[in-house]
Amino acid sequence: MKTLFTGADILTLEAGKPVVLRNACLGVDGDRIDYVGTVRPIAQYDTTRDFTGKMLIPGLVNTHCHAAMTLLRGLGSDKPLDVWLTQYMFPTEDKLRPEDIRSGSYLAILEMLSTGTTSFTDMYYINDETIDACLTAGIRANIARPVQEFDPSARYEDSRRAKESFDLYRRRNGDGNGLIKIDFSIHAEYTCTEEIARRYCEEAKQYPGAGMHLHISETKKEHVECMARRNGKTPAQWFDSIGAFDGVLRPYAAHCVWATDEDIALFAERGVSVMHNPSSNMKLGSGFCPVEKMRAAGVNVTLGTDGAASNNNLNMFEELHLASTIHNGYMIDAEVMKPEYTLLMSTLNGAKLQGRDDTGALLAGYKADIVAVDMNKPHLYPNPEPMATLCYSAQGSDVCMTMVDGKVVYENGEFKTLDSERILYEAKRSCEYLYGKE
Amino acid sequence: MKTLFTGADILTLEAGKPVVLRNACLGVDGDRIDYVGTVRPIAQYDTTRDFTGKMLIPGLVNTHCHAAMTLLRGLGSDKPLDVWLTQYMFPTEDKLRPEDIRSGSYLAILEMLSTGTTSFTDMYYINDETIDACLTAGIRANIARPVQEFDPSARYEDSRRAKESFDLYRRRNGDGNGLIKIDFSIHAEYTCTEEIARRYCEEAKQYPGAGMHLHISETKKEHVECMARRNGKTPAQWFDSIGAFDGVLRPYAAHCVWATDEDIALFAERGVSVMHNPSSNMKLGSGFCPVEKMRAAGVNVTLGTDGAASNNNLNMFEELHLASTIHNGYMIDAEVMKPEYTLLMSTLNGAKLQGRDDTGALLAGYKADIVAVDMNKPHLYPNPEPMATLCYSAQGSDVCMTMVDGKVVYENGEFKTLDSERILYEAKRSCEYLYGKE
Repeated sequence: MKTLFTGADILTLEAGKPVVLRNACLGVDGDRIDYVGTVRPIAQYDTTRDFTGKMLIPGLVNTHCHAAMTLLRGLGSDKPLDVWLTQYMFPTEDKLRPEDIRSGSYLAILEMLSTGTTSFTDMYYINDETIDACLTAGIRANIARPVQEFDPSARYEDSRRAKESFDLYRRRNGDGNGLIKIDFSIHAEYTCTEEIARRYCEEAKQYPGAGMHLHISETKKEHVECMARRNGKTPAQWFDSIGAFDGVLRPYAAHCVWATDEDIALFAERGVSVMHNPSSNMKLGSGFCPVEKMRAAGVNVTLGTDGAASNNNLNMFEELHLASTIHNGYMIDAEVMKPEYTLLMSTLNGAKLQGRDDTGALLAGYKADIVAVDMNKPHLYPNPEPMATLCYSAQGSDVCMTMVDGKVVYENGEFKTLDSERILYEAKRSCEYLYGKE
Repeated sequence: MKTLFTGADILTLEAGKPVVLRNACLGVDGDRIDYVGTVRPIAQYDTTRDFTGKMLIPGLVNTHCHAAMTLLRGLGSDKPLDVWLTQYMFPTEDKLRPEDIRSGSYLAILEMLSTGTTSFTDMYYINDETIDACLTAGIRANIARPVQEFDPSARYEDSRRAKESFDLYRRRNGDGNGLIKIDFSIHAEYTCTEEIARRYCEEAKQYPGAGMHLHISETKKEHVECMARRNGKTPAQWFDSIGAFDGVLRPYAAHCVWATDEDIALFAERGVSVMHNPSSNMKLGSGFCPVEKMRAAGVNVTLGTDGAASNNNLNMFEELHLASTIHNGYMIDAEVMKPEYTLLMSTLNGAKLQGRDDTGALLAGYKADIVAVDMNKPHLYPNPEPMATLCYSAQGSDVCMTMVDGKVVYENGEFKTLDSERILYEAKRSCEYLYGKE
């Protein structure tokens, strides 16, 4: 099946830099893009779709999520962080059954597909139901089961979490013709003993190229307490010391709000990608990730929503807007963040973090992960600089088509692979179990 | 005509504090609310509308806008502030004709009504076409023609701008049965001579209760240069010294990013309302308005979009989201801003700034300025704390009905008073004139 989109403005790359082709064509052959250009291709296509008035952009890549936590959306909002965690998050998470993971993951995927996310990176402690939901929906995901261990006397050999993590890799890595990748994960420095973390990294290296999903320096407290606990090492330095940044792995670190200049240099040297989560960092009062310093140092910075419990949604257009603006305000400089860069953060850089080198850009040969934005809206006119329009004016709700791997999975409010009413019904059943009848 | 809404969650006030009544009723009689409560009223209504699954909130009040500037959306984005102003904004504004003011204002109103704004406060140098557009659309607005004068030898008697400002008041204040209020305005300290500003304030006092729309301390440069220029006075102190904060007037000041503790005390003492514009302040790198200090000092803080040229849209849900989160990030404290407060900022506080004491709340006796949010969306479920859901999860596009003054002006994507296709067509004609054919 070959489809040609005509008349659209297309966000593509020229010499590695984002550019917008006006009134251009994009061809899809099966699961891949086979043409992007302003001249209509000579090749024959089975279907031609007039996308005049729409903008085609690469599917957005949400690099830090806990999808099933949509069921905890809004819970304990505006409580202090420790109260929120210990009195709201942990007790509810303790109750989650596999069917709740399933309903929460489906709920998450509905929102992600309808707001232009075609791939996400997930860290959570039950995974099979999330993977099944991704396969049914037709969305890409890198999934990791994190290791954590508070008991200092715990032995690696007995770690159920490490076993589950590797077992998941062996059972499900590459599922759905590569839609699913299984990565590894240590939840955070403050939730794991050194012995378990070190041994886990050693074992992970038997799977070259697998990802290592980490939380690093999200809060000042975490950063400072780590240094006190680990002989002056920052969380980044500690993770490096136990082997999590080994070149055999593909490490990536969420938040990094309190990363020092030395940490940033370490990320650049070791090829550690960073997930910037502006909504979560703002809402929870974590602080400002030094994105501009990281960019200047050559770190691969990406964009994520975090879980819906700390955001409180999974809308990458909102993150794009925040990443494009808040750092200017913080540094009192209108030129700190440019659309050309934040658009890369939310697409190509995310694809690189995921180890998916043939996604994240609208280029011939790349996977057909494509999002159409309906530009025929009052708030998107005029549109003299389309990349600025995407970052400052566009909304997740302006997405009118989401294609993953060459398949249209969402169009004009309709989910092609999912029954949204049934998903909402099942989410309500889960919430009744978790919180009681409304 | 009496309409009863049933089954909705309703954001109302109890003892001056926002509360949400679940599964409640709201009655409208003509242009006013005549009932809010959880018990179904005994009174007869002509129409009963089942709004189960929807949330009714007070219409949002956008307290700082330059509506016609939607035509300059995206222009010169990401240029340094002075380049943006002098090379992009000013030359384009010089070209604006009355028909461009009209088409730009209509374009602005389309976006505002569809995202839940029922009243806005506007400062711009041509006004009649904006007022006419408001009357046709059925949206409330406080409109001011600002005074500015760079020439130190200019005499107040010759000030065309001052004449136009008062003329506008006399011609149009109270139009549309009070939908329109005309306020006064001095653009800013850095754009006006002291003589003109002082004399203008004196004349304005002949109209007790009229508003006085000001820009104050938007950038550090403005703040510091004022102190050098005005014998150490901050912009707030200078405006106070020339009589702009006189008790006869209803003064309100946009931005106030660099307001000092003394300025804040002055605002509280003089009853100066502040318009917080988070998108604009972040995007343009202006900095963080000390909203929490102002709240603590008893200042009436409100919320605005600024013009679409510096935002780049007019979506109050976006401002609500930013105001609810960025200050937590800036002050590294998850409890700085609470939904209860930011919802007041965007409704009742705005109404107070506008001198419209019977708007801004869903209470019996208040004007029927009502917005319905469709809660039956994946990203709005679960919804354990509806005020948190509004601030952190809801989008402008979730608005499914906007009522102003008892009239439904927007519902389910349809504008009842405006022809959106014609408005987009006319906006395109204006843009072709301003920027040439695409």
